[in-house]
Formats: sequence, structure tokens, C-alpha cells
Amino acid sequence: MSETRSEVRSGAYYDSVMLMQLQRSLSELPGVEDAGVIMATPANCEILTASGLPIDSSAGPDDLLIVIRAEDSDSAEGALDQIDELLARRRSSASHAFRPRSLESAVKQLPDSQWVLISVPGRYAAGVAQDALALGRNVFLFSDNVSLEEEIKLKNMGRDQGLLVMGPDCGTAIIGGVGFGFANRVRQGKIGLLGASGTGMQAISSYIHNKGGGISQAIGTGGRDLKREVGAMAAHQGLDLLARDSESEVIVIVSKPPHPEVAAAVLNHAAKSGKPVVVDFIGQAPPAKRLGNLHFAVSLQDAADLAVSLSSASAEAGVDILTVPASDEKAPRYIRGLFSGGTLAYEAVLALSSVVSPVYSNAAVYEWQQLADVMVSQKHTIIDMGEDDFTQGRLHPMMDNDLRLRRLRQEAADPEVGAIILDLVLGEGSHPDPASEIAPVIEEAIDIAKRNGRNLEIAAIVIGTDEDSQIIEEQTTKIATAGAMVFNNTSDAVYYVSTFLPVPKEPNMMPLSLAAFARSVAVINVGLEVFFDSLEIQGASVVQVDWRPPAGGNEKLMSLLSQLK
Amino acid sequence: MSETRSEVRSGAYYDSVMLMQLQRSLSELPGVEDAGVIMATPANCEILTASGLPIDSSAGPDDLLIVIRAEDSDSAEGALDQIDELLARRRSSASHAFRPRSLESAVKQLPDSQWVLISVPGRYAAGVAQDALALGRNVFLFSDNVSLEEEIKLKNMGRDQGLLVMGPDCGTAIIGGVGFGFANRVRQGKIGLLGASGTGMQAISSYIHNKGGGISQAIGTGGRDLKREVGAMAAHQGLDLLARDSESEVIVIVSKPPHPEVAAAVLNHAAKSGKPVVVDFIGQAPPAKRLGNLHFAVSLQDAADLAVSLSSASAEAGVDILTVPASDEKAPRYIRGLFSGGTLAYEAVLALSSVVSPVYSNAAVYEWQQLADVMVSQKHTIIDMGEDDFTQGRLHPMMDNDLRLRRLRQEAADPEVGAIILDLVLGEGSHPDPASEIAPVIEEAIDIAKRNGRNLEIAAIVIGTDEDSQIIEEQTTKIATAGAMVFNNTSDAVYYVSTFLPVPKEPNMMPLSLAAFARSVAVINVGLEVFFDSLEIQGASVVQVDWRPPAGGNEKLMSLLSQLK
Repeated sequence: MSETRSEVRSGAYYDSVMLMQLQRSLSELPGVEDAGVIMATPANCEILTASGLPIDSSAGPDDLLIVIRAEDSDSAEGALDQIDELLARRRSSASHAFRPRSLESAVKQLPDSQWVLISVPGRYAAGVAQDALALGRNVFLFSDNVSLEEEIKLKNMGRDQGLLVMGPDCGTAIIGGVGFGFANRVRQGKIGLLGASGTGMQAISSYIHNKGGGISQAIGTGGRDLKREVGAMAAHQGLDLLARDSESEVIVIVSKPPHPEVAAAVLNHAAKSGKPVVVDFIGQAPPAKRLGNLHFAVSLQDAADLAVSLSSASAEAGVDILTVPASDEKAPRYIRGLFSGGTLAYEAVLALSSVVSPVYSNAAVYEWQQLADVMVSQKHTIIDMGEDDFTQGRLHPMMDNDLRLRRLRQEAADPEVGAIILDLVLGEGSHPDPASEIAPVIEEAIDIAKRNGRNLEIAAIVIGTDEDSQIIEEQTTKIATAGAMVFNNTSDAVYYVSTFLPVPKEPNMMPLSLAAFARSVAVINVGLEVFFDSLEIQGASVVQVDWRPPAGGNEKLMSLLSQLK
Repeated sequence: MSETRSEVRSGAYYDSVMLMQLQRSLSELPGVEDAGVIMATPANCEILTASGLPIDSSAGPDDLLIVIRAEDSDSAEGALDQIDELLARRRSSASHAFRPRSLESAVKQLPDSQWVLISVPGRYAAGVAQDALALGRNVFLFSDNVSLEEEIKLKNMGRDQGLLVMGPDCGTAIIGGVGFGFANRVRQGKIGLLGASGTGMQAISSYIHNKGGGISQAIGTGGRDLKREVGAMAAHQGLDLLARDSESEVIVIVSKPPHPEVAAAVLNHAAKSGKPVVVDFIGQAPPAKRLGNLHFAVSLQDAADLAVSLSSASAEAGVDILTVPASDEKAPRYIRGLFSGGTLAYEAVLALSSVVSPVYSNAAVYEWQQLADVMVSQKHTIIDMGEDDFTQGRLHPMMDNDLRLRRLRQEAADPEVGAIILDLVLGEGSHPDPASEIAPVIEEAIDIAKRNGRNLEIAAIVIGTDEDSQIIEEQTTKIATAGAMVFNNTSDAVYYVSTFLPVPKEPNMMPLSLAAFARSVAVINVGLEVFFDSLEIQGASVVQVDWRPPAGGNEKLMSLLSQLK
């Protein structure tokens, strides 16, 4: 019959490598069947209980809990007796040459250091990061369990000083050829990665390497960077850096779906980068296969494949790039879409939502985009005029253009409207010559706008074949002659009109120094020693700080100390 | 100064072509500036008012409202005086040779007819469709404003009789080479379309034609078919037909995002078709680029491009097809994923959600997928073990496998679990030899299941490069030798495990007759004459029913009549 014994230790700080190694050593002792060594958080306790290691319920989340299940009580108690010795052995084996005890002395020891890698427990991490920024160093914040408020505060500090805060909970980066945290060994190359997703970036960088491509820089932002509260601050800094970095010829952005407004701002910034950008917002519907220089991927593998093929293509030229107009506050601000085809309207909402926000529609992709009154356009608005609202007692707008043309004149007269998208769906059942009715009103609409002192761009999507009775070439010519640009699909049309909008400004920020991303990387490591070893093996200059929690981890004393500062 | 006059006519039925033509004729009269002829629904009234035609507020939604704006009162009144004459002219020009007054007599006149095309106003449409089904005819229901309840009732009737109900609000179809409703003229070919999206199908069929491909059949379902309430009844019937139709070598499915369970059922059905299937659920994140024979598109253009390239490829073979096991109620039913990489977990949720439902996770793609308790798996469950819950006071699972291995044993012991997905992320910072710890537990897990009398499939996703210190080939070999299938990306791994699940059954249905889709199409048209003309021009046999609303459109009388039946 197995015997279980446990021990609780309060108030002391142990790093998690130490705990893992203690658990392993205990498991290997004679007679021991299983051992658990955990900080006694509810989750950790539940896991041990579930795997047959019952828990001493008096332990709290800040307590170290050691549980032994052994063949007999002697073995169990024998194991408990060895804890101190095993801990001591671990400490001595970990002792190295001289190690600075503080960031300040580490900086003196490695004055060229541009980076501080932080992997101390979450509740201490923000403090260390703040110290690093105050010392003028960029931060790679591996630690998790850091609050959103702390993240915003740190990133604001970084933005104002031209310093990058990757993280918190940043799993990976490759800076100047050196992997930080978790990182795969990959070829140096032309592809710059930017991501709020650690394993996402690891997978993409591995796929790129395995396909023969290479990585220039891989910049992590932490998983929450593209949330509304943080506003993609690290992503904007990273994009700006990758746009300036001449070695990065293709950029890849990977993230879980960002807040829509944040996403639009990031994509607008990416559109201005002058480089092909692959976007993988995993789990979000791609707005199109391509919008200008933005290429949308549907998976990590797909993102890597696209990036590699673009990086080969860009060398040979052939990748055309968006020229984004300078931001002009006075330019008419909104796009309106008047569709006879419901699905085309829906595709237009999808594509437009990726570069501007908010978009409203009666063919909404997201519930919050639902237009309150289909008769009244609001900001960017796409109307499906084939919806029931418009067809009661009337022919479908593919047959009868009247309502759509009335609406077109209305939209043209709206001083805030800068561009209008229309569709012409040809074929059986449709109007026998729609362009003859629509073209004159396009001319009229452009004229209305001109008389009001503004430009009106009109994009028309023509769907049809060379066998349709309407003669597609004639239809296209009539519409084009009236002054519209003609496309055969929604994403090209949406992209076209979007280039006439005033461009949202990126957040004000001090630019990051390119020097920090150059080939000789010097890093101060605070926390897990495994990262020290890894940086050293990769040839980086690195100093390990012999970090201990303030006041030995005692919360009350910590709070007193911080008040004294 | 302009003068406006209006007239209201109650209780009479006018078809919408008549109204459009009356409006045109009135606009062209001398002195008339603008004319509006509408059924006075609130939306229609609002549109006219907005375009400068003020509305007589006494008119109700069933009333015909005619508004004239003219240069002077004489012209305005003169125009009103001509309404009757213009309506009479229209009627006489529309008169043809003998026309049956009822569906029954139309069927006698065209006994080979397989189809009834219905475009009468919505409130009459369901009644006509029901009569058509009762007469053993398939239905193309162009009419909109038909209730969901009526749709379900009609589709149930169709399913039980092996008859298809396309619609309501079905814009397009191409059956046996003949376009129904709105349809582009396209080449006959190898691609079968199935869609809940009219212009979506028009655009795809046009793109396919323009790229040199061709269409075998294009089957519309109506926009609501893939909602939960309808359960994709027409889509399942259509899929079954296209799978049996030897001319359809590639299938394309297009729809706005379906209900998740409906989507999973349709995709499972598509997976069994034995043909490459291109899926464009517009506005929904594709679960992957490819899962078995399912290829996911991100736009209408992309769907067409994929279909054309698959239809060329399939001729040369080279497209590998899923072999789906027979449904086995007793097979273990659930997939569990235990991930160290958050993004890989998230991709797995995304991919898995497309073929099974519900999936739960602490890396949920949709809010409702959120796992209540990360310690307890529910049905299909994907766990990101790098989340804060698991890492407080512990190393990340890429460094420390302990918790993941404990959980693996638990999942293996669950009699409902049929497959487990794991990841191994190699590289700097990760465990120096994860396979040495994980492989023995994989063997153990398979053994636990075997001892409990069931099969356990394990799929491992290995991320890394040939330069990583762990030596990726050795890691892969250890894991594979232990009994896991090894992949390098999530979608292949998810696809693999999904093939071991019992397959959900399609709804019971009488199969559709292939004969109704053969090259000689005979149609009875009830409603818009433009469709009669279009069918005739395309070479179909067609009879126009001289349809009038029951009781002259008088609602009270209609209800009395229907009670007498």
C-alpha cells in the first residue's frame, strides 16, 4: 500500500527550474513512486490531485508544496528529509563566476548591452522591466502573469524613449540573428516577422527555414499588444523598424484577431511600409487574398509559404506596391457601396473592414456593423439593395436600377463621401443594358461632387462573361467612359477606393534604434538561467544578474521598500 | 415652380415589371420631371421622399402609390389622367398565345416538366411552391419575403419526395445547362456549384468561365438554407446529387457563415463525396488551407481559381481523397489536444471546429467554446498548457513536460477519447530532449486505452528546423516509434485524427432524380415574364402560367378561400 507525505514551505522564493529539478530528484529516490513540487495555486493543486497526489489543503498559492507518494512510510519520510540537501546541491551547481546583483551593475559590466531579457516571476517582472527602460535598454519580457495596466505603463515608457517592450508573455524573438526565449535556429534572410503569437512565430520561422528562406528579425509583441487597450504599440514600433530595416524585404505579421480598429490601424501602417506584407490574423476571416501590398494567409504554414514566395519574387521585382497618399484631414472621408448583389456587398464589407473602421451595412459581417436605418448611410456604409427592405413590390435592383440611382445621387451630394462602389451583374434575367442607365448617373454624381468642390471616385465591379447577352465589353466601356474605374472583383475595387481616403496617423513614437537590431547583440539576462546559456551558445554577449526577489519575496516588506524609494 | 400630385390605388394586384414600366412611361410624358410608382411600404416611401417626391401619408403597404412631379399642375394632372391608359397598353402588349391559368393545366401542357420557377410576390409564393411539390415538380423559388416557417415546411415536403426546393430568395441556378433566374452564360464543364449566395454563385461561375473552366450544375439553396432552423436541407440534397453526378468532378460550396453545427455536417458530407470540394464560407475564418479533399477559399475569385486548378488536376489524378470510415456509434467519440504552443492550440481549435462540434478550449476561437474548467475536458477539447493557469510557479510546458504528461495519462484513461493531439516545439530555450520524456508516456497512453478495449490515435505536431540543438529527426523518430503519427502543422494533424471519429449521419432524404438535371430541361414559369423569355431563348421547354393572385389579392377573401379547400 502506498503512503503519501507532504510538506509546506512558506515565504521563500524558489525559481521554477529549481522546483522542477527538485521534483525530478525526489522522484528518483528509492521507494518513491511519484513526487510533486509546486507553488500551491488552485490549478496546480487540482492537477496533482487528479494524478493521484492528494494535497494538503492548508497550503496557499504563495506556498511551496511538496508531495511524495512512496511504497512505504519510511521511503516517503526519507524523501522529505532530503529536500534541503537536494535544494543546496542545486544551488551550488548553479553557482558561476562573478555575477552582478543588480541591473545597474550589470549595465556597468556590459555597457554595450541593448537588451534586457526578463523571466522572473510575474509579480516582480514589471518592476525589473521599468528599471531596464530607465537604464535605456530595450526589454524582452518573457514573464507572464503581468497585469494589463503594467503592460500599458511599460509600453508608454518605451514609446516615449524609442525603446521596445516585447511582451509580457513574449515567448520568442530573433534579434540580430540571436534567438531570445524560445526560438528555433533559422537561416538569416530577407523576411522580417512581427507577432503577438510566440509559437506562431516559431512555426512560421521554422517553415520559412525548412523551405529555404531566412529571417532578418523576429519581433514579438506579447499576446495582448493588439488588444484595444494597448493599441498595438509594440506592433507599430516593430513595423516602423522593419520598414526601415533594409535587410527585411518582406514582412509577416501574425496575431490572434486584433480589435477591429487596432487591426485597421496596423494594416494601414503596413500598407505604408512599401514592402510586401503577409498578414495572418489567425481565426479571423481574411478580408481578401490580397489588398495592395497586403497578402492574407489562412494558416501559419500558408503565411510562411506566401512569405518565401514573395521574398523570391521581390528580388526579381514584380511585386507592385501601394502608394498611399499623404494624410489630408480635409479629404472626403467616407466610402459608400450601393450593391445589387448581396454577396458582393458582403465581400465588400469584409474587405473594407480590414482597412477602415467602423463600417456599417445591411449585409453586416459582424453584428455591431448592422446599419440602424438602411435609408441613412453612416460613416463607411455598404448597402445591399437586393435586401427585402428594398424589394417589396419592386423588381430586384439587377432588373430595375431606379432606387439605386436615386441613392447614388444622394450619396454623391453628401460632402463627407469620397468614393462610391457599385456593382453591375450581367446575365440572364438582369437588365438588358444596365450601363445605359447607370453611366449617365455616374457622370452626374461626379459632377455633383465637383460642383461642391470635392473629388468623387467611383469604382464599378462588373460580373459577367463574354457570352452574356449584354456584351460585357460595351457595358464596361460605357461605365468607364462615364468616369468610373472598372474591376471584376470586390477586393480590387475596395482596395482602389481605400487609397483615396485620408490615412489614419500612427501613434506618435520615438523611432527605435536600428543599431539595437544589428549583428552584435549584447543582452542582460534576469531570471531563468537556461536563457543565459542559450544566448551564450548563440554567440551573444550576455551577463546574468544574480536576481533575488526584493525583501526575499516577502510581500509586506516589498511594499514598504517600494514606498521608501 | 414644380408641382407634385399623387394618387393611391388600393386592393389591386400589379406585377412589379408593370409598375416599373408605368413609372418609366410617366417620366417620359411632356412636362414631367420625376415620377414614382411604388407599393407604399415604409422603405419605398422613404426612398421617394428622400429623392424629392413627397408622399401621401394615407397610403399603406398594400396600396399602389403614384407620385408625379411636373413643371406645372396641368402636366402633373395630365400625367395622372393617363395612368389607366398606360396600364392597359402594358397589359395588351404582354398578352401572348394561350396560357394556362393554373399549375395543374400547365403540367398537362408540359408533362415532361421537372421544374417550376416561381417569382410571384412573397405572400403568394409558398402556396404556389406547395402546389408544385404536390404535382411532383422541383421548385426554384425566386420570390423573397417568404417566412422561415414556410421555407422549412416546403423543404420537408421536398426532402420526403426526393424533390429540391431552391430558395426562397434563390437568385440563380444553372440546371442541365439552362440558367434559372439571374444567371450568366457560361461554358458547360466539370465544376458543380452549390450555394446559399446568388451573386456569389454568379461571380464564381463567371470567373470559372473567364478562366476557361466550365459548370456542370449550379444549385442554389436560398440564403437561409444553412441556418440552424433549416439545417442545410437543400445543401445536403444538392451535395448528394453533385456527388452522384458523373459530370461534376469538382464541387464548390459558397455561403455566408453557416451555423457551426450545420457547417460541420455539410463539411462532413462534402468529405464523403469522394471529390475535391472548394469551400467559401465568406466572412468566416477558413479552418485551414486544406483538410483532406476540402479546400478552403477566402474570396469568390479565390474559390473560382481553386476550382479551375483542381478540375484540371483531377483529370490528371494527383488529388488525394479522404476515405471516411463508416459511421460506428461505438467508436470513441472525442478528440483531445494538449498543447505547449498557444497558437498551435488556437489553430487546432479553428481547424477542428470545422468538422466537429462543439469544441471547447482555453484557447477558444469563439466565445461559446470557452472551457468552463481547464482541468476537466468536455467533448472535443483543446488545451493550451502554456496559459497562465498552468504556469504559475511552474516552468513553461516547452521546458517542463510534467503537467502535460500527467494530463495525457488522464485523457488516455477517458473511455470517450478516441484521439489525442500533442505538439513538440523544439529550439532554444525548450527542453533539450522532449521526446525522451514524451515518447514513453505516448506508449503508456496507447496501452491504457488498449487495456480498456479501445483504439487511441495520437498525432504529434513537431515544430523545428535541422539546425535546432534537439536534432529534429531523432525527436520525430522517438515519437513515431512510440506509436504517434507525426506532422509538421496543425491542419494535417487535425485532419488525420478527425478521420477516426464516427461520422455524423446526413439527414434522411429521398435522393433527387438525376434525370431532372439532364440536358433537356422543361420548366413551368409562374411570375415574372422576363424569366419565361430567358428560358425560351436558352432553349428550354417552358410554359408561362397566367397567374393572378387568389381572390384578386384580397386578403380576407384569400383566407376564406383557403378555409374552404
